[in-house]
Amino acid sequence: MKRTAHLLSSLVFTGLLMSPPVETQEIANAYRQTADRLIDALTENHDAYERLTELVDLFGHRVSGSVALEQAIDWIMDEMQVDGLENVHGETVMVPHWVRGEESLQMVLPRPRNLRMLGLGGSIATPPGGVRAELMVVSSFAELERRAEEARGRIVLFDVPFTNYGQTVAYRTGGATAAARAGAVASLIRSVTPYSQQTPHTGQMSYEEGTPRIAHAAITVEDAELLHRMVDRGERVELLLEMNAQMLPDAPSRNVMGEIVGSEYPDEVVVLGGHIDSWDVGQGAMDDAGGVVAAWEAVRMMKDLGLRPRRTVRVVGWTSEENGGPGGRAYAEAHADEYHVLAMESDAGVFEPQGFGFTGSEEAFGMITEIGTLLTRIHSGVISRGGGGADITALMETGVPGMGLQVDGTRYFWYHHSDADTIDKLDPDEVARCAATMAVMAYVVADMPVRLPR
Amino acid sequence: MKRTAHLLSSLVFTGLLMSPPVETQEIANAYRQTADRLIDALTENHDAYERLTELVDLFGHRVSGSVALEQAIDWIMDEMQVDGLENVHGETVMVPHWVRGEESLQMVLPRPRNLRMLGLGGSIATPPGGVRAELMVVSSFAELERRAEEARGRIVLFDVPFTNYGQTVAYRTGGATAAARAGAVASLIRSVTPYSQQTPHTGQMSYEEGTPRIAHAAITVEDAELLHRMVDRGERVELLLEMNAQMLPDAPSRNVMGEIVGSEYPDEVVVLGGHIDSWDVGQGAMDDAGGVVAAWEAVRMMKDLGLRPRRTVRVVGWTSEENGGPGGRAYAEAHADEYHVLAMESDAGVFEPQGFGFTGSEEAFGMITEIGTLLTRIHSGVISRGGGGADITALMETGVPGMGLQVDGTRYFWYHHSDADTIDKLDPDEVARCAATMAVMAYVVADMPVRLPR
Repeated sequence: MKRTAHLLSSLVFTGLLMSPPVETQEIANAYRQTADRLIDALTENHDAYERLTELVDLFGHRVSGSVALEQAIDWIMDEMQVDGLENVHGETVMVPHWVRGEESLQMVLPRPRNLRMLGLGGSIATPPGGVRAELMVVSSFAELERRAEEARGRIVLFDVPFTNYGQTVAYRTGGATAAARAGAVASLIRSVTPYSQQTPHTGQMSYEEGTPRIAHAAITVEDAELLHRMVDRGERVELLLEMNAQMLPDAPSRNVMGEIVGSEYPDEVVVLGGHIDSWDVGQGAMDDAGGVVAAWEAVRMMKDLGLRPRRTVRVVGWTSEENGGPGGRAYAEAHADEYHVLAMESDAGVFEPQGFGFTGSEEAFGMITEIGTLLTRIHSGVISRGGGGADITALMETGVPGMGLQVDGTRYFWYHHSDADTIDKLDPDEVARCAATMAVMAYVVADMPVRLPR
Repeated sequence: MKRTAHLLSSLVFTGLLMSPPVETQEIANAYRQTADRLIDALTENHDAYERLTELVDLFGHRVSGSVALEQAIDWIMDEMQVDGLENVHGETVMVPHWVRGEESLQMVLPRPRNLRMLGLGGSIATPPGGVRAELMVVSSFAELERRAEEARGRIVLFDVPFTNYGQTVAYRTGGATAAARAGAVASLIRSVTPYSQQTPHTGQMSYEEGTPRIAHAAITVEDAELLHRMVDRGERVELLLEMNAQMLPDAPSRNVMGEIVGSEYPDEVVVLGGHIDSWDVGQGAMDDAGGVVAAWEAVRMMKDLGLRPRRTVRVVGWTSEENGGPGGRAYAEAHADEYHVLAMESDAGVFEPQGFGFTGSEEAFGMITEIGTLLTRIHSGVISRGGGGADITALMETGVPGMGLQVDGTRYFWYHHSDADTIDKLDPDEVARCAATMAVMAYVVADMPVRLPR
């Protein structure tokens, strides 16, 4: 039945496409009152922030494979039921289960000192008793290649200052392989962050087939710079790295979801959400409980206001984004028979919202831009080209238009994947505006007479 | 001999005082060229920053009573000799010797978790095995008084947001006594800082005669807020605090100093410096190695430029400021026979310098303000009323005019007394301008024909 409705709507849609360009201004005009209701209702209180606080306080961080993650998912389902969302359920996904275990890094020479560190996700353990070796410090992959013959038997530290995440994270993901190729016995990175208060930042790393696997960990910016200076001064630095990390068999987790079924086209879906897993540090408040809760509150508020759009609006908390994203892929596969009109993700923190980055056709971009004008009053209606999210990539690869919530990113990477990703870094009003921004965009796209073109 | 010179100069001074108000504009005009030479020489390189980096990298933190503190003092004397400073020496001072030992704080109920903490300086240890008790959270001394009957047998947490240092530090210094009076078995404070990345901040605390002594420690802002929310939500929180702190017998340390002996009035002294000790965390880079090095570089540059002022200019690294300030008091006592024209301290971080806070007579304030105009080109010549420093308080109490270097204080307390007080937080150009600011002020006051009036 759902399939029939889909085909029918496709025909309607095709008809519309053949008309002259849609008068998108009319969409904005038609939805201004509803948009204002959503914005008012979501920004007149701190409900989203309070729900987010409860989630992260009750369950703490929620790493892939952990009990806390599954407890958080159970709690979300219970709460979504209370909210009156429909089809609330979890969909099982097998996820990687990496556990950190005990770990430590000591400077042995020239002066004994403990260094703060976090093993990187997916790293192997060191041999029992740890790896003790002289330190070599490089500033780039290129420097390591030039000085490769010095790396044999050493612990290599990549002291690479943050430029942007995409560039700098290459040392986190690929540092162990590059160091191992040169014969290093372990590798360290300067944490991927532009700012530090002695806070190490973790995150996923990977190995390459055919290259020896060595332990890989992050140290603080402060210590990376200190060790670099010491070596530059001619001091011989010896480190002892001990890690007991283990990759356990894949564990069952779930994508968690709830929805408001569309009144006319129930199997046309606007999906919005974030990932419910986090790293095993801090509270995972901005990465990415905030994204899940902002999307959830957006849908919850539609329900509270009695708004049932023509198409289905579904909030999803995808699982295990941090450990390779099996949740996003499983969702795309399990829901391949539905027509996704739009996929929206928030995974850059729920700071001051600015708008969305959108990936889709020119025509769709025009419509989304027009809908964005409904958000001008809360300054979050700027639509830029290009955007999405790790959890909706698999959907987008099937042709679904995708968008990512864009926010003031000034401080996101100060906290990202660290113990400092806690609720106190977020502002209740900003979180509320993120929810309102997602609500207006999702509702209008789900309800407008014309289906968002691909 | 020195005494005779002092008396002579006093007579000269008295004569000048009886003349019409000094044409202070002339002082500035007369010293503009020399001031510019000092500023140029100190700001055209990063020598001060490099010396500071070497000091904090080689010796790390330098807590009162530690070997590292004395090694740093030895190194400073060696370097001052190399610089060609005169009368380089250390003056022995007995200092408190508190050692932290092993310490930990665990949330036992409702969910096991380690909490980052730092015992506060001077705290006693817990009994062996630690103190395990239910947590009580208050927002102020007033709230503790209102709810005093609930505190018996509890661990009391003062979750007091930072307003300014003077206000908020009252909970660090007096929290244990207030909690013990109400029958608490241990006390905790939210770290005294306006910003946190899960960084605890230590600092001195004190006990009161007649009140039981209980262990007293700081936790992070994040955890203080989390525990507060949990208790407000009705969760019963139990903590286990273990501290092995010890107050050992007083240890010998030294005030370290070097000088340029005055050409005309050798026993009239302009003294400038900071404290060479720090807390036992981070590198004590801004608190207060930076103050010592900025003053030292100021004097070193006078020497390098062949400037010998009429009066003696002396740089001092006072010891044990953090543990009650015996260094500053011992200096005032040991040098009571000298006429201190001016005492200048930098102990608010060597960030962008703005000027000085000055405590002295109206007439002296006018002169200092005029000298400040020589610093306008580096924007550090604003003189405000009131200022000094912990290490020069004893001198100032004998009538010596005093001043404290004022800097951009935006982030000082982010790092203060924490592991994040490291060299990377400072800017080489700003450190250079701090040294230049101190150099110009100290040189002109030491050399000008008229002695700064009291």
